[in-house]
Order: sequence, then C-alpha cells, then structure tokens
Amino acid sequence: MKPELAIVKIGGNVIEDPVELQRFLGLFSDIRYPKILVHGGGKRATAVGKKLGVEARMVSGRRITDTASLDVALMVYAGLVNKKIVGQLQGLGCNAIGLSGADGNIIQANKRPVTDIDYGWVGDVVGVNSQALISLISADLVPTFCAITHDRKGQMLNTNADTIASELAIGLGGQYAVTLYYCFEKQGVLRDKEDDHSIIPQINLEYYHELLENQIISDGMLPKMANSFRALQSGVSRVCIGNTDMIASSPGRHTILSL
Amino acid sequence: MKPELAIVKIGGNVIEDPVELQRFLGLFSDIRYPKILVHGGGKRATAVGKKLGVEARMVSGRRITDTASLDVALMVYAGLVNKKIVGQLQGLGCNAIGLSGADGNIIQANKRPVTDIDYGWVGDVVGVNSQALISLISADLVPTFCAITHDRKGQMLNTNADTIASELAIGLGGQYAVTLYYCFEKQGVLRDKEDDHSIIPQINLEYYHELLENQIISDGMLPKMANSFRALQSGVSRVCIGNTDMIASSPGRHTILSL
Repeated sequence: MKPELAIVKIGGNVIEDPVELQRFLGLFSDIRYPKILVHGGGKRATAVGKKLGVEARMVSGRRITDTASLDVALMVYAGLVNKKIVGQLQGLGCNAIGLSGADGNIIQANKRPVTDIDYGWVGDVVGVNSQALISLISADLVPTFCAITHDRKGQMLNTNADTIASELAIGLGGQYAVTLYYCFEKQGVLRDKEDDHSIIPQINLEYYHELLENQIISDGMLPKMANSFRALQSGVSRVCIGNTDMIASSPGRHTILSL
Repeated sequence: MKPELAIVKIGGNVIEDPVELQRFLGLFSDIRYPKILVHGGGKRATAVGKKLGVEARMVSGRRITDTASLDVALMVYAGLVNKKIVGQLQGLGCNAIGLSGADGNIIQANKRPVTDIDYGWVGDVVGVNSQALISLISADLVPTFCAITHDRKGQMLNTNADTIASELAIGLGGQYAVTLYYCFEKQGVLRDKEDDHSIIPQINLEYYHELLENQIISDGMLPKMANSFRALQSGVSRVCIGNTDMIASSPGRHTILSL
C-alpha cells in the first residue's frame, strides 16, 4: 500500500484573516503524515499593487499579468505571504519550506499562448518534478507553495493555485495515496447555492455530469471540479472540497469527490 | 579530503545592475562543484518601501526594522529579488532553490536584545541546521539565500547578509572544504582606499591585526573582515574578497584571507 500524503490548498479567505490563518495552520501542522500546502494570494496583491501604482488590468473580465503585476505577485505571494506562513508553521513545529515552482525546478510551465487575449505572464503547467518533491518530503520537509511557476528559461509565471494543487497531486499519485483538499469559504459543494446547509456529501463522476447538465455547479466551482476530476482520473486517491475544518482529526461536513 | 563547496555573497551593487547580475549568475552557474548563493537586498527595498509609505527609520545612524519595514524586506528580498534570481539561475541550467533562514529551519536567530537601541525585528544568528542544508546539496540543489532568518517561534527577522554567509560557511566547514567569497565593488581589500589598484593579495591573521592597528581597514570592510577571520578560525578553509570576477575559472585579482 502506498503511504498517505495530504495536499491542502487554501485561498484568500483564509490568508487574509490572521485568526483563521493561525487556526488553519494549527490544524495543518497536526496532520501526522506527509503533507504539502498550496496557497493563493488573495486581495493583498491588489492592495499592494495599488499603492505601488500598479493597477490590476482586466481584458474581457480576465486578469492580465503584465511585468509590473508579476513583480507584485512575486513580492506578495512568494515573499510576504509565503514566508510569513513558513515562519508561522515553523513556530508550530512544522518543518515548512517555502517554494515557488521555479525552486528546484519543481513546477514547469509554458507561457499561455496568445489567442483572442494575451494573458501576459501567466503559465500553464506542463510538468512536475516529482523526484525533487519526493526528496524534500523524504527529508521530513513540508513543501509550501505559492502560485508561481517558471518557464525554465528564466521567466517566472503567475499560475492558478487550484491547478498547481491538482498538478502536484497528479505528479505524486504514483508514489503516494494522495488526498487533495480544496479549502474554500463554504462547507462543501452546495445543491442550492442560496442554502449553505445543502452540502452534497459525495459526488462521483456520473453524478458530476448530472450536476453539470442541470447547472447545479457554476461560477468558481466549475474549474475546481474540473481540476478535481482530472486529478482523480490521473491517479489521485481522493479530493475533498469544504472549509478548513475538513482537515481536522474530527473533520466537519464536506464534499468527497471520487470516480 | 573533504569535497569543495563555494559560498558566494553578493550585495546591492550586483543585484541592482541587471547586466552585471546576469553576468555574475553565468559565472556562478559555471562553478562545477557544490555551491550556495547569499544575496543582500540593496536599495530596492528602500524604493519600494517609500512607495508603500514605509520610511527607513534610523536611530544613531543605525537602520531600525519595524513591522512595516520587515514586511517590505519579506516582499523585496525573499520575494522579488530571491525568486527572480532563482528563475534566472534555472534558465542557466543551475538548479537553484530560494530560501530564507525559516525554510527548513536552516538559520535560527534571536531577536537582537534591546540595549541603548531597539533595532526592531533584527536577528542575530544562533544556529545553522547543517544537516538540512547537506541534504539539499546532496539532492544537487543550489541553496540561494536572502538575508532573512527566524526565531523558531513564528517571527521572521532581518539579518546581515555577510553574517549569514559566514555562519553558513562555519556550519558546513565540518563536511566541506568551504571557500567563502565576499563580492563587492572593489577588486579586493585596498592598502590605500583612494587607490583602486592597491589591492592586498594576501592577508593572514597577524597582518590583519597590523592593518587594524594602522587603521588601514575601516568603514564597511571592518565587519566583513571580522566575519571572515571568525569563519577561518571556525573551520572555513578560505575567504576571498573582491569583485565578481574572482569566482571565474580564470579569476581576476582579489584578496585571499587565511589564518
């Protein structure tokens, strides 16, 4: 049997609330088997960017990463947020090591091709260096990733944190029984998005397609679910979607996805 | 015989000049044995801080690191500068991994005690986790440090980059024949600071004391030399002081320190 590994992704709602972040990091530190943390950035980059005179550029509702925005992402995600989390985890006795995808060449990406939109310095993941990750995990380190990758030619690239989490899960699925946890503000995938109690406990591939057809899943949940099923179909054992309580030793309600 | 290891420290003069930085990183990548890079921050943090409304606070001519200044240091040193260097090194085929002292708990420090001056979030190094470093180096990674440490209780600390370089050198001196390179803007320690050609090729401990007595060494060179001789007395094989050409396969003129 493969050893267990948890990959936990958190977003802005956890990162921006110091009390919630500290509580989450406590729960995360308590996971007694190998683990990886992936964090998004939240609104802090927008706030810092604004002060630095870098406005978020949007084209057709999509965020564009120009050179100045990428610098802000490196400062806020790879610097401020990542290192503070590493420091806090160390304070909790969890041997975190903060990484971008460039560090140890762990996550390789290509700049997204220009079609109707030029997204700028945005990367689509093309490879995960599993061996490097395994050697860090084997040294009892806890990889802690911000959502930055690189193109192997010297260029850093902004990348979706959910995608990074699922690509890492897929890359390690051969070696570990990986559970991928997508933490967000709700307790799980909702049958009725107006009703926070309508959590769907289990979703398999067939039910997922049914939910898609009936447009029960929408907005931000769509790419998260697509990432999840792609991960499950690529050897990841389990995907859980819910709030941070789902990683506790007595987990709260959440949604479990399976094939 | 111990295997060789190079620890190279660069400062603002290299970091702030994109052409010089790229040239240096090429020379650094070409070192064919295990190596570590330590970089300072330069004036970029001051410029970013100013835009963010964080003024550099000075007391009796010493820089104070308050909470806002530490955030700027994390953004600029640990984020922007460190990750860009890692990306560029990866582009040169050098498998860099960007680190602060908190990552992997590699450099532990205590907050500097308050005496006449409260330096704020400034750390004095108290320990180096050599085993963690050796395991990274053994995985063919090239540790690339910014000048940030931590107190093991969750607090990040601003730390002198020269000191970090010498502490790492001392920590690895048992395992490796370490050469510590302090790069700066001159070709070496000068006999006459008005004459850039007056480079002293070799300085041993006796000569060092003679130079000190005659006040040939002054200003910024004083702590660099003190760090160097402390390192040599703690098992570091060699310390070289000069400009970046000294790490080339055909090194330029520079100063070699020995006991």
